Amino acid sequence: MKGVLYVISGPSGVGKTSIIELTLKKVKNLVFSVSCTTRPKRPNEVEGRDYFFVDIVKFRDMIERDEFLEWAVVHNHYYGTPRKFVEQEIEKGKSVLLDIDVQGAMSVMNKYKDAVYIFIAPPSFDVLKQRLINRGTESQENLQRRLEDAKRELSYIPNFEYIIVNTQLQESVDQLCSIIVAEQLKVKRIIDRLGLHRFFENGGENNE
Amino acid sequence: MKGVLYVISGPSGVGKTSIIELTLKKVKNLVFSVSCTTRPKRPNEVEGRDYFFVDIVKFRDMIERDEFLEWAVVHNHYYGTPRKFVEQEIEKGKSVLLDIDVQGAMSVMNKYKDAVYIFIAPPSFDVLKQRLINRGTESQENLQRRLEDAKRELSYIPNFEYIIVNTQLQESVDQLCSIIVAEQLKVKRIIDRLGLHRFFENGGENNE
Repeated sequence: MKGVLYVISGPSGVGKTSIIELTLKKVKNLVFSVSCTTRPKRPNEVEGRDYFFVDIVKFRDMIERDEFLEWAVVHNHYYGTPRKFVEQEIEKGKSVLLDIDVQGAMSVMNKYKDAVYIFIAPPSFDVLKQRLINRGTESQENLQRRLEDAKRELSYIPNFEYIIVNTQLQESVDQLCSIIVAEQLKVKRIIDRLGLHRFFENGGENNE
Repeated sequence: MKGVLYVISGPSGVGKTSIIELTLKKVKNLVFSVSCTTRPKRPNEVEGRDYFFVDIVKFRDMIERDEFLEWAVVHNHYYGTPRKFVEQEIEKGKSVLLDIDVQGAMSVMNKYKDAVYIFIAPPSFDVLKQRLINRGTESQENLQRRLEDAKRELSYIPNFEYIIVNTQLQESVDQLCSIIVAEQLKVKRIIDRLGLHRFFENGGENNE
């Protein structure tokens, strides 16, 4: 059985990274797709774990060679999802978590109909603002821009299938885990794996 | 926000009753819809908890008065879901679990598009047979009939949205709970409850 692609999206500062990190520890057969970015590395970030940090020349080169599943310019920096890794893992039967901005998610939506689209929303706009301030990584100007973007991004919620309101981290992690369990119980995904044909063809006399 | 209707179906002896019983203990705001039946009460069953046991005259009277959401004849006995209870609970915001045979589920499917349809399958046909024998409530003739019916019922799996293969009871309960959590995170169901309009109308300045 093929793996499932989970696209996790939502405004900057909503807590996507923490939710994903804890979920990866709890769920088997689930891997994280590491994006490429031209944004400078933050102090707590690790090359190859959080992002592949590349320069703009290399990034444009990868666009030319069609190596991205999607890419976008967000807050003046390029972000892109390497296509090969995602497609290989799905084919091997692993499920893949993608952490992308709302623009990127909208563009993946057109290409991957079978993926599961999950929006992470803040409990309120003020909470989002406070989280961005607490993170302390944004200049005043960047903060304003991210908040403007967030307003626009929230209007895309109706395009997503699921929404998790990130009030309490552990609860959000449990909710994401439930979505992953439930999606793997969808008849459309599971019917091949179980070989249900055995019931139809011989009334189940042959139970492996 | 309205509640969600969960329709649990699958062949006789697959373990629907045990899964439902344990799930009701774990999930808040979830109630069980008690069916009416003309089938004789089994020793461990309680009137009003497992079924409302009625005679055939009363049952036909209820059909006449259109009091059933669905009804069916299964293994020579009538089974029916009282409509009023289900509709009232959903309206109040409670979610409702319905335990009905496959025939009944197919008929509800035409009327309640928003409901969630879950098939409980045995790990194999032989396991199902063994469970029915162990239950010890069936005559040899009944047993044969239930097995014949099971073969037919399994062919309806593709009409359901989710499938739980009941190998281990506790795991099946966890899976049903995950489906219920995930369904309540569906954007289409949640958008009213959260009042997301506040984000769209004023950029989220008003966070209650």
